[in-house]
Amino acid sequence: MKVLVIGGTGLIGSAVVKTLSPKHDVISANRHGETKVDITDPASIRALFKRVGPVDAIVSAAGGAKWAPLAALTDDDFVASVGDKLMGQVSVVRAALEPGALSDGGSVTISSGVLAQQPAPGGAAFSLANGALESFARAAALEAPRGIRVNVVSPGWVSETLAAMGQDPKTGIPAADVARVYVQSIEGKQTGAVLLAVKA
Amino acid sequence: MKVLVIGGTGLIGSAVVKTLSPKHDVISANRHGETKVDITDPASIRALFKRVGPVDAIVSAAGGAKWAPLAALTDDDFVASVGDKLMGQVSVVRAALEPGALSDGGSVTISSGVLAQQPAPGGAAFSLANGALESFARAAALEAPRGIRVNVVSPGWVSETLAAMGQDPKTGIPAADVARVYVQSIEGKQTGAVLLAVKA
Repeated sequence: MKVLVIGGTGLIGSAVVKTLSPKHDVISANRHGETKVDITDPASIRALFKRVGPVDAIVSAAGGAKWAPLAALTDDDFVASVGDKLMGQVSVVRAALEPGALSDGGSVTISSGVLAQQPAPGGAAFSLANGALESFARAAALEAPRGIRVNVVSPGWVSETLAAMGQDPKTGIPAADVARVYVQSIEGKQTGAVLLAVKA
Repeated sequence: MKVLVIGGTGLIGSAVVKTLSPKHDVISANRHGETKVDITDPASIRALFKRVGPVDAIVSAAGGAKWAPLAALTDDDFVASVGDKLMGQVSVVRAALEPGALSDGGSVTISSGVLAQQPAPGGAAFSLANGALESFARAAALEAPRGIRVNVVSPGWVSETLAAMGQDPKTGIPAADVARVYVQSIEGKQTGAVLLAVKA
């Protein structure tokens, strides 16, 4: 399969690229670097898909949000978070369903996270985006044309992130294990699914 | 209790006002009319809360989204839907948690809908907004100050809406029954809850 990974240099994205590479033809796209895309700009996503498409699978492991106490999050923080992690990935799905981006029966897999169901202080903007992405993906799967599947992977706390935060990485899931859940979405048959990638 | 109902002239909002009125002091605020508010404008929400507050409970049964096939939804449709039903109600919660809006131990209750979990063709923008609101409310409940509670009511298809669409109202839940779930949120103790208001 030809697979496009948006955010392919991030912690999870690079693990997805590494896991897919022995078996699939992988293209990594990022905000900076050789194959560029800015998911906050729908025209940039369409231009990328036109340049590399059609592919058999599109993965988005891209999009940030602001981590801060709710009372400290400003209107601008919400606008930026909604525009990036949430609407950036919604734009990826919408563009992926347009003609030319994906082959018939292809798939698009986006990324939410455990904060959708299990909030943590400071994570309100992430919770908002993650919950939206899961419900949107279920809805988009219903209306996807040409047998295209739409799924979301919801990673728990990732070991490498916890280690970087000075916390015990063993309480989280290694990025390599998260990557295997994206592969399940790409190689499997499910659609409209929220695939949990949490510590076993 | 002194209760502010935003969207108090809508189908669900007016049922909430009617159900609360015998027992509570209810203020109804709407986009038009005597007590005005535009939830897409955070300054309008803050001005309302300053004018009527502090109250013991705030209910939002306000905010629309665009109903259309996913392929027909434009960038502008998403911007409008996200700005109204989603971020309008997020702004209600954020403003409700600021000093002066709610009394200590008060509550804010917003509205999602069954499309968060059970999508329908045409409802992608609603699914997105509803899923976001449920996850955001859980997160906001964690960080709410002064014992303030934050809940979401998720109505199923409402009988009166079904009737207006020429469908069988008996397959839905009457607005009066939905209203009782808002009253549970206001008079109860729960926080961070998604309260389902579906056909019994």
